[in-house]
This record gives sequence, structure tokens and C-alpha cells, in this order.
Amino acid sequence: MEVTSNKFMVTKCHIEGAPDVTHFAVKEEMVPLRIDKNDHTTLVIVKNLYVSVDPYMLNLMKTQNSSNEILTALSLILPGHAIPSIGVGRVLDSVHRDFKAGDLVLGMLSWAQYTIVPIGVDPLLQKVDDKMGFPLSYYTGILGYSGITAYGGFFKVCKPKKGEKVFVSSACGSVGNLVGQYAKLFGCYVVGCAGTKQKVKFLKEELGFDEAFNYKEETNLSAALQRCFPEGIDIYFDNVGGEMLEAVVENMNTFGRVAVCGVMSEYADSAKRGFPNMLRIIYKRIKVEGFILLDMFDVYEDFFSTTTQHLKAGKMKVIEDISHGVESIPGAFVDIFRGNNIGKRAVKIAEE
Amino acid sequence: MEVTSNKFMVTKCHIEGAPDVTHFAVKEEMVPLRIDKNDHTTLVIVKNLYVSVDPYMLNLMKTQNSSNEILTALSLILPGHAIPSIGVGRVLDSVHRDFKAGDLVLGMLSWAQYTIVPIGVDPLLQKVDDKMGFPLSYYTGILGYSGITAYGGFFKVCKPKKGEKVFVSSACGSVGNLVGQYAKLFGCYVVGCAGTKQKVKFLKEELGFDEAFNYKEETNLSAALQRCFPEGIDIYFDNVGGEMLEAVVENMNTFGRVAVCGVMSEYADSAKRGFPNMLRIIYKRIKVEGFILLDMFDVYEDFFSTTTQHLKAGKMKVIEDISHGVESIPGAFVDIFRGNNIGKRAVKIAEE
Repeated sequence: MEVTSNKFMVTKCHIEGAPDVTHFAVKEEMVPLRIDKNDHTTLVIVKNLYVSVDPYMLNLMKTQNSSNEILTALSLILPGHAIPSIGVGRVLDSVHRDFKAGDLVLGMLSWAQYTIVPIGVDPLLQKVDDKMGFPLSYYTGILGYSGITAYGGFFKVCKPKKGEKVFVSSACGSVGNLVGQYAKLFGCYVVGCAGTKQKVKFLKEELGFDEAFNYKEETNLSAALQRCFPEGIDIYFDNVGGEMLEAVVENMNTFGRVAVCGVMSEYADSAKRGFPNMLRIIYKRIKVEGFILLDMFDVYEDFFSTTTQHLKAGKMKVIEDISHGVESIPGAFVDIFRGNNIGKRAVKIAEE
Repeated sequence: MEVTSNKFMVTKCHIEGAPDVTHFAVKEEMVPLRIDKNDHTTLVIVKNLYVSVDPYMLNLMKTQNSSNEILTALSLILPGHAIPSIGVGRVLDSVHRDFKAGDLVLGMLSWAQYTIVPIGVDPLLQKVDDKMGFPLSYYTGILGYSGITAYGGFFKVCKPKKGEKVFVSSACGSVGNLVGQYAKLFGCYVVGCAGTKQKVKFLKEELGFDEAFNYKEETNLSAALQRCFPEGIDIYFDNVGGEMLEAVVENMNTFGRVAVCGVMSEYADSAKRGFPNMLRIIYKRIKVEGFILLDMFDVYEDFFSTTTQHLKAGKMKVIEDISHGVESIPGAFVDIFRGNNIGKRAVKIAEE
């Protein structure tokens, strides 16, 4: 049987609070490159090309508690075990009727060189069309799950109207930068916040946001929002929760909508909860709605055709921050929580 | 000119925190009973029959601040001035084309014996059909704005499905008891909470709630909800906000809906805010939506015909707590915040 060495990343312990590179270790195992006819355990073997590094994964690394009990759609990440992650790869072998050797796939792979999907497990994979001609890394971001999350969250949850005033937090993040770009292309007034001067400049000069501010430089978030939104906020795409959500509610217009996509402020510190003013939520008739990627697949076709058209027309920018090799994954992950990245954080695992 | 004495209630000061009867005083003035042809200031004169006593009014009695700045749809209640309130009355005279002497009207009257609508002000009144044969007090509650708030909030905001699990806070209140009754008639599993043993008994024995609990006797609200909802909560009709909202979110099912109708816990103490777990709001895809009465008039016809049918068929109970005379208004109002009332609190001002 043809086998090869597979390096994969594991957590050494459950992670409470902010992650650090010392929480991770590389393991190595031998994996098959082909499914032997006597092997009745393996469904699909994928050679990982790019893997995604996403903030939500930290929730799965925590000790089982009331926070991650809710993540029923996702598997917990257990110390010492392979870490499931979104990625793009090439099928090396498959006994699943939907996939064959050579297929390019997008979906749930792992922080590893190879992903083995065992029999009995539904492979959360979809085929990707090689002939589109886009760089493969795009499928971890703008043409993958960051893209569908931004597109579905903005169009399906926020239900924007042209000219509405849109605020995006973590606006330089993998999802936030796309929400801002979709909102501008749709004809909204768009403001973003981020955590460095450089990012604020980037939002205004490179991504065409109407306004942007560095939340770390503001002593009063509500006043900062009032300055950027003299006519109030209609839509808030929330990636952070906490105090910012509270300040946004104070500045929201009647029938405002909040799409809750992430709670960056809570991921690494569960004490930092927001206290939205419920009286305002009533009198301004504000809707706050949580959503996840899994709810967005009904707009996938629409998302994909719209986004590839925008890309071909040069109307959207692809912001990626890509490191190389399994060993670089912990550093990339830790960086997200330190606010060190602009755009999609992904790791290139192998050349084709 | 035919005139009469009009007793009306005023606040003596802005009210911060819980209201007390000493905050109020009766004033007296002379008002006309007919609109003289030389009077170019009066639009409609109404003899008040019943006036409503509602918790939201406390927000309008506070010092102007960020909380009541949002109440743009409603006028603030200023010390020494007449207090606008929902009520039912008889038109004594009118130069408005929609109203004539003798009409029975429901809408914005005042805590007084007579309400004078001046020219230039849109009378927020609608005509009521005398011939329906229901007691006039019903128009302050079940057939009035408590009814449409409960009906619209439940059916239009919560969008229930038969068999869903519904929780109502302040379930013995003017709106809460109706939400519970509508939900039971619609085929939901319904649980309410209230603040006394007597009310809990009333919910189960008189109103047919499936379960009820006294929140003051529970050391752990989340555990109480878990006991009453072993299969989780699908819909929460929120009249109180605060810690209860937090506990409900912990027990909510996927795609749960919260209709935010009131924040009783904040009216008298603005510090008691809820800290909903935003991670749960995301992963359970929970929607939290504020609404007010004014948004519900598009279902008014539907509400009125459904409710009058239920009443004629003896399927709904009318829970009223009615005191007599303008002087009794402050006591009735204070009682609401002390949890002393069951059902609609209203004041009978005059016999027909």
C-alpha cells in the first residue's frame, strides 16, 4: 500500500482565553495515498492545498461548557486530535460516488497535509470547477465560506435597500472586508471599524469605504459612530459583539437590523458581553438576528455568480494573508486574535 | 358658553426610579362642553369613560435623557401638565369631519374627566361600534391596545407554528395574559411567569397555561425554564428584559424568536440590563425583535374579528382590575410596578 507521512496540527490542551502558539503541536502519522480494495474504512483521501484559519475555531477548542454545548452543528476540537478546518484540496482517491481522484474540492478538511474522510461520515465537501481560472486560495475566502457568509449575511439577513447606512465591525477581517465591498457595490453608505491606523487607511483608500475609524483610538464608541453616521445606522453587520453592539444600538435608526455573525470580543474573554438597551430595541423596532454559514446555502448559486462576475470585472478586491506550511498555522491563528491580519488568513499547505 | 369642571391628574416632578402616589396631584380647570362657533381653537371634546394605566407611561415621566429621547412617536409627560393616556370616551362635540357628538371613541385621551383635542393636532382616535354589546372597559384592554399589542406581537412578530413552545413573562399583565390565551387557542405549549403564588395558580387554573412559575421563588431562572421547557423554548414574548431574557436565550431552540414588547425590569431601574449570550444568538440563529403598537394596525381587522369571535364563543377570559375616579389613577399606576395587579389595570372615570 502506497503511504506517506502526514503532518497535522493538534492542540495540546483546551484553550481558555486568548490562544498562544505554545498551545499547539505538530504530530505526524502515516496515511495511505490510495484506498486499497481491502480497506473498508476509508471513504475519501484529500491532499490539502490551502486551509483556512478562522476565529470561530477557538470556541471549539474551549473546555466543553454552556458556550460550546450550543455548537451542535460542529465537532469540538479535542487535545491531541486532528483539527477540522475549512480548506481546498485535491481528491487522491475516493469510494464515494460524488467524488473521484483528481477532483478539486472545497469544504471541511483539516489543519494537516492530508485529510482522510472515514466511511460512515458525510464528507462536508463540494466540488470546485477548476476551469474558472481563479487562484485556489480564493476558495478559502472570497469564493468560499467567507464569501458566502458575507453575501448571505448581508443580503439575506440584513435585507439592504440602496442608500441605507451600513456599519461593519472587524471591517478588515475575512468576512468584514467583503461585506463592505458588497454593500458599496449595492449602493449603500458604508463605514467600517478596525484596530489599527493602517487598517483604517486601507478601508478608506483601498476598499472605498465612505468612512472608517480605529476603535482603539476612540474614548466613546457611541460618539465615534455619531460622527460617522450623522443620519444614523440602518444596518450593522456585527463581527465583534460587546461594547460596540451597545454603541451601535444607541445610534440605530427605526427598523434597523443587526446581523450577528461573530462575537470576537467574547471568543477570547467570555466576560465581555454587550448590554444592548432594550428600550431602544423596542422603540426603534430593531431586529437582532444571529446566523451561521449553514443557513446560507440557498443563496449559494446567486453568491457565486455575482461574486465571480464582480471579480472578472475588477470590481472587488481580494485581500489575503497567506503563510506557508502546517507549521505556520498556529502563528496565523494567534495573529487573528491579536488583530495582526488584513483580510483572509489562510495557509498554503502544498503546491498542486 | 356651557362649561364644567375638569379634574385631571399631573405629575409634580419628573420621576426617576419607581413611582409613588406622592409624585402625583389632581388639578382642576373649567372646560367647555360644546364648541362655541367663535371658538377657533377646539377640534374635539371627549367625555372620558375609561382610561388605561400602562407601564410604558413611566418612561415618558422621566427626565429627558437618552432613554426617552427615543420615544419620538410619543409626547413626553411634563410636570404640571395633563397626562396623555389611552382611553375610551364619548364625543360631546366636534368640528372634525370624522367625529360627531355621541360617537364612542378609543384612542389617545388623558388621565382626566374630559379631553380637549385642539385644532392643529391630529386626534389619535378611532370610532368604536356601540352595537357590539361588549362592556366599554374591554376597549381599554382586550379589544383595545393591549389586545392588538398581544395579537400583533404574537402572530406578526413571533410567527408561531402549531405545537411550538411559548414563554411569556409578566404573564398576568394586561398584554401577557392575552398572549398566553392566543397562544393556547392557536395550539402552542405555553408557560408563563409571574411574581406571586396567587398569579401562578391563576395562570394554570384560570387561563389554562400548561405551566407557570413564580420568578421570585426561583434561585436560578435558567433552571426554572429548563424544568418547564424540557424541549426548549421556540418563542419568547418578552415583557421584562433583564436577567429573564438572558435565561431565556440559554434555553432557546434553533431559530427561536424573541418579540420584545416591554422592559419592565428597566422602567424603574435603568441599571438592570440583560446580558444575552451572543454566541448562542449566533449558533442557535435566534432573532430578537422590538416592536410597538403603532406597527400593528395592519392586522387590526384580523385582530378585532378573531378576538370578538373568541369572546362570543367564551374561549377567552377578560381579566380586568378597575378602580374608580381620577383620584384612583396614581394608586393603580404604582400598583403595576409593585406587581399588585392581575390583568388589565384601568380606571372608570364616569358612567355613561
